Amino acid sequence: MAVFEDESEFIFTVDGKQIGTHKGIIKTEELVDKPFGGTFHTHTGQKFVALRPRFVDEIYHMKRKTQIVYPKDMGFILLMLDVKEGDKVIDAGVGSGAMCAALARAVGSCGKVFAYEKREEFLKLAEENLRKWGLLDRVVLKLKDISEGFDEVVDAIFLDVPDPWNYIRQCYDSLIGSGNLAIVCPTTNQVQQVVDELQKNGFFQIEIWESLFRQYKTNPERLRPFDRMVAHTAYMIFARKKYFKEV
Amino acid sequence: MAVFEDESEFIFTVDGKQIGTHKGIIKTEELVDKPFGGTFHTHTGQKFVALRPRFVDEIYHMKRKTQIVYPKDMGFILLMLDVKEGDKVIDAGVGSGAMCAALARAVGSCGKVFAYEKREEFLKLAEENLRKWGLLDRVVLKLKDISEGFDEVVDAIFLDVPDPWNYIRQCYDSLIGSGNLAIVCPTTNQVQQVVDELQKNGFFQIEIWESLFRQYKTNPERLRPFDRMVAHTAYMIFARKKYFKEV
Amino acid sequence: MAVFEDESEFIFTVDGKQIGTHKGIIKTEELVDKPFGGTFHTHTGQKFVALRPRFVDEIYHMKRKTQIVYPKDMGFILLMLDVKEGDKVIDAGVGSGAMCAALARAVGSCGKVFAYEKREEFLKLAEENLRKWGLLDRVVLKLKDISEGFDEVVDAIFLDVPDPWNYIRQCYDSLIGSGNLAIVCPTTNQVQQVVDELQKNGFFQIEIWESLFRQYKTNPERLRPFDRMVAHTAYMIFARKKYFKEV
Amino acid sequence: MAVFEDESEFIFTVDGKQIGTHKGIIKTEELVDKPFGGTFHTHTGQKFVALRPRFVDEIYHMKRKTQIVYPKDMGFILLMLDVKEGDKVIDAGVGSGAMCAALARAVGSCGKVFAYEKREEFLKLAEENLRKWGLLDRVVLKLKDISEGFDEVVDAIFLDVPDPWNYIRQCYDSLIGSGNLAIVCPTTNQVQQVVDELQKNGFFQIEIWESLFRQYKTNPERLRPFDRMVAHTAYMIFARKKYFKEV
Repeated sequence: MAVFEDESEFIFTVDGKQIGTHKGIIKTEELVDKPFGGTFHTHTGQKFVALRPRFVDEIYHMKRKTQIVYPKDMGFILLMLDVKEGDKVIDAGVGSGAMCAALARAVGSCGKVFAYEKREEFLKLAEENLRKWGLLDRVVLKLKDISEGFDEVVDAIFLDVPDPWNYIRQCYDSLIGSGNLAIVCPTTNQVQQVVDELQKNGFFQIEIWESLFRQYKTNPERLRPFDRMVAHTAYMIFARKKYFKEV
Repeated sequence: MAVFEDESEFIFTVDGKQIGTHKGIIKTEELVDKPFGGTFHTHTGQKFVALRPRFVDEIYHMKRKTQIVYPKDMGFILLMLDVKEGDKVIDAGVGSGAMCAALARAVGSCGKVFAYEKREEFLKLAEENLRKWGLLDRVVLKLKDISEGFDEVVDAIFLDVPDPWNYIRQCYDSLIGSGNLAIVCPTTNQVQQVVDELQKNGFFQIEIWESLFRQYKTNPERLRPFDRMVAHTAYMIFARKKYFKEV
Repeated sequence: MAVFEDESEFIFTVDGKQIGTHKGIIKTEELVDKPFGGTFHTHTGQKFVALRPRFVDEIYHMKRKTQIVYPKDMGFILLMLDVKEGDKVIDAGVGSGAMCAALARAVGSCGKVFAYEKREEFLKLAEENLRKWGLLDRVVLKLKDISEGFDEVVDAIFLDVPDPWNYIRQCYDSLIGSGNLAIVCPTTNQVQQVVDELQKNGFFQIEIWESLFRQYKTNPERLRPFDRMVAHTAYMIFARKKYFKEV
Repeated sequence: MAVFEDESEFIFTVDGKQIGTHKGIIKTEELVDKPFGGTFHTHTGQKFVALRPRFVDEIYHMKRKTQIVYPKDMGFILLMLDVKEGDKVIDAGVGSGAMCAALARAVGSCGKVFAYEKREEFLKLAEENLRKWGLLDRVVLKLKDISEGFDEVVDAIFLDVPDPWNYIRQCYDSLIGSGNLAIVCPTTNQVQQVVDELQKNGFFQIEIWESLFRQYKTNPERLRPFDRMVAHTAYMIFARKKYFKEV
């Protein structure tokens, strides 16, 4: 990943190819075996710093065809889903694969993500993104309509579809007792429908959250927020499975 | 973990002991081999649901002597630090151990957290908490003043001390090139000092963030936020190491 | 109004009576003809500053039986309603009278507020509050159910009732062309119903807003927000009257 | 004011002239004696609604050379300054005149605003704006550097200059006892300096606030906030004058 002084960024693989930028050509062969954090030059002499891209950088630059879960919500969702090394989780629908990748990182190399998507073009895009990020072996991609239910029983489910209230029973059936469910939806009307269904279907400890993240300018003598910010991405709904019958 | 209908929560180990609550005694021996998510009764017949505590539940109920990093910031910090399976990271100062535990979960069983704390009572408390959460083997606890510097070179550093601007050089020296630094501080004056030091000491891609999380009441026919919310915990500062000299 | 060093406040009339406080008795006769802003003592020698109460102070200390519109929303509503000297406006329902008083201040001594309330106990309370604040002569209080409509045609209407969607047509009929309507409601479900009715009933330039106000601690060496804040009061909906038929 | 179906707005005087728009020409002579709220057509047959501009509309469309105080903060400042009919207030510096006009509306026809500005071009612009809004007779414009102090003693002062901490003593000298001061500044560094000076110079009940206003889309079946919002305009600082000596 190259970052120029004007803060423009280019993510690429160091494979010997040349990368064209508005600041000249980056010859990636010159970067082989060089340390990250170093300063280099394009063929026109423009400086850039070579950085190891973070996962958040990959997300901002990823190829996408859908709205994705942004880092401001992603980290909180991972915590509320309690996803950890070795867990088995379901991601439905996959979309462009950003949250799927985040779950795959969290379950680690001995965990597994079962990723459902009914639109083939999105599943292929997600596969492409996951392969690039080296996470494909942790994910089982499934081209399937989730109205038929899921094939696994898992620790946690992340549900990101336009009509999540239609799949609450399917989520219930595929969660272990006290397993965690997270649902994101952009409108208040959707939240109302989802919460109503959760309450009717054995879910417990339901919480609804939204986040606002505000960034500040980095002039220490004039410390102040930026003028504008993201006002809304999605409401986040969390719930845990409780058995209906007493045991 | 037992959750009563009044939403009161009790976290305990299922070890055969009895747990006293305002709703009667929980006999943990009755829970052995029972599934999480089931409903049980105290000796007075009060119902509770037995849940597997999430890490966020552990944090809310943990024994602490210091301000801790809250989940609303914790997930975002883990993403911005790009901590993943196998990473080596530094946590300074440890405090009560909440963020240390979050880092330990993220690096997985083959990663390592080097945790610095100069106050012995806090280090012991952190050790106790980490042991309870089964994370102690991933953490190297060090009773040490960080003004002398760190003993390792790592992928990422989390710095949470009252005067972070005094340790920027030490952080620089212990990060790999393009390694990630996260600093939290509650006041704008601290942010000003930290950012000034970061800019003078080879850090790059500096970002300052704060988060506001707002929770909604779960009545779907009267969907609205709660009346009050957390207004402030800490400002989060992120930066990446750039080498001074061109390479 | 007396403000003690512990920030406790007492609002009273300087009429010669004695005011009992946790810091001793304030003899108001000693304050006659003394300037506001001066420091005085209770009978036990405790210091207080005598201030002319602002309208916001009166609101915070007012006798109320209902939820009131808070200053954070009040000033914005007055601007969006475009209320100014000499205007005629409707306030329905009056409740405890806080917003009614704000409107009365804004229309000035030659304007008029027509204030509707169907519950007699609230109307009496509002009358009492308005008299105390010297605003009663600008307000016409009406004990009346607004489902029958309003008796006037006015520049602006402020509607604060539990079921505002039922009175949109009445508001339309009592507004001049391009007149301004403001509605407050606490839940998203109410907002949905109100906006739907506004769109069906000739309203225009509909805007929905909510405000978050965050206060900072006043230590200049440790500038930071308070820990907690108000997360929600009400959604504010604004609209303007458009004639159905082309003219 | 004409509002087209694409929400584009044009503010003009109905004086018989023609107004060119991207939707065709508006012949203002056709609007004479027509009611506000009516629907009319341009010469190409495009529909528009004629509305009486609110003060907030005037502000959004005003000619300006400076950053102005936005409605989200303006209404709250007027309340905290407790400005009402008949008051005398100081506005320094005037800038483009938006807040000056808001103060002039609040003091009414029998109140007065003393408006200080040291840059002649801004004073002329403010004069032009105030004349257009019909508020010039309530304002005394003064081309003067406020470091020399103010000529009046007033109920309230609004201070909006780059270095407000340099004029705290002048504000103190020109306020009645318990009079209200409001200061706006965009950076935390400025807030720190201002609060420090206020505390040293006899001010009392100091409060620091910031506001976030979030707007929602008006589709009642998909109620949700807009994607982006204003993140910051200025911090608002309020204080009241206390006499140094006991009286």
